[in-house]
Amino acid sequence: MADREQAIVLVSGGMDSCVTAALAGRDYETAFLHVRYGQRTGEKEYRSFESLANYYGVKKRLVVDISYLRQIGGSCLTDERIEVPVSDLGKEEIPVSYVPFRNTHLLSIAVSWAEVIGATKIFIGAVEADSSGYPDCRKVFFDVFNRLIAVGSKSGNTIEVATPLIGLTKKEIVLKGAELKAPFHLTWSCYKEIHLACGRCDSCALRLKGFKEAGIEDPIPYEGE
Amino acid sequence: MADREQAIVLVSGGMDSCVTAALAGRDYETAFLHVRYGQRTGEKEYRSFESLANYYGVKKRLVVDISYLRQIGGSCLTDERIEVPVSDLGKEEIPVSYVPFRNTHLLSIAVSWAEVIGATKIFIGAVEADSSGYPDCRKVFFDVFNRLIAVGSKSGNTIEVATPLIGLTKKEIVLKGAELKAPFHLTWSCYKEIHLACGRCDSCALRLKGFKEAGIEDPIPYEGE
Repeated sequence: MADREQAIVLVSGGMDSCVTAALAGRDYETAFLHVRYGQRTGEKEYRSFESLANYYGVKKRLVVDISYLRQIGGSCLTDERIEVPVSDLGKEEIPVSYVPFRNTHLLSIAVSWAEVIGATKIFIGAVEADSSGYPDCRKVFFDVFNRLIAVGSKSGNTIEVATPLIGLTKKEIVLKGAELKAPFHLTWSCYKEIHLACGRCDSCALRLKGFKEAGIEDPIPYEGE
Repeated sequence: MADREQAIVLVSGGMDSCVTAALAGRDYETAFLHVRYGQRTGEKEYRSFESLANYYGVKKRLVVDISYLRQIGGSCLTDERIEVPVSDLGKEEIPVSYVPFRNTHLLSIAVSWAEVIGATKIFIGAVEADSSGYPDCRKVFFDVFNRLIAVGSKSGNTIEVATPLIGLTKKEIVLKGAELKAPFHLTWSCYKEIHLACGRCDSCALRLKGFKEAGIEDPIPYEGE
């Protein structure tokens, strides 16, 4: 196993990053990166990250705090004055949970770390289809980001971002996770609450829809059940 | 003046960002962004930033700490175990002062802030010609980054990175600064020392060469003078 190439996996602690970690672990020696950005549910997400890293026996872990995103604000996830809305997945516009340009921050940290530890891949569980409509979760964004790594880093073309879930629906992600025996019971997706998942925000709604369509029971408890 | 568009200027506190701020201020209402990344000379650079912001009467200021770059390491600027070398500007390779993928971190913060305050330009004093050879200081890097903003942010094409010094030599930057009466006496460039500039690291060497070729005296004192 020691000869396998290294990959960094961005692990938020949600179901998508859990399945992404399961996928990456098949082919790479994985290093887990968790980024706290002052979001309301940060503590819960961090605990899920640690549980997932323990579950997979990951030795290289990096936890980075970019809570300066809270100083900047502009999202209901980082500004307590902006309420987390009840899900309305039919809407076309970018939701208030959008954290301005967030994925560029996350990926930059991953690239810097990859350059130092010699990793060749960066896995991120971004989903374009069946997602909240964030501009930085689209395939075109990751294509341009890979070009940025090629022109802007010392290691050039040897580091690449991989987005294995980008074209999957939430249903397909649940099925893929079940196939890989991904530990969904350790994950956390809710944007709003910190004890039991609310079941009503965009993130909970997408997750529940995925499990329902896959015909699999979501192993985590929800408020009011 | 209130009707002018807003621009964010990345102000490290060095001579290049000082001249960039002078240029940006001619056409825009400027907001100054300073990023601390755990570099050895951080305190000195921060004081230069504050002095420059006071000098230009800038109201919107954001100081962000990304000292997680120190956790990651990989550069003599952020890792005390790697010595800052005496300048050898003739070398072709990327120097050890290269901080992995640093400019992407800096620009991401600027884009997030621009989205929230409604700024349309981001000025950065990067120099390609006559520089230390960092990959993320080349024009091609900024071209790709602008494409990344267009595809990855809510505001799309309305935010753009401007690099007015990118093609200038250090000599030309000094002359431009002199023309704009840029307050060079408030700036700090040295990578190594924190009392008097060392005069010998890459950054000091480039600065001194620029002033010498411009036939203008550098107003800051150096060690051993």
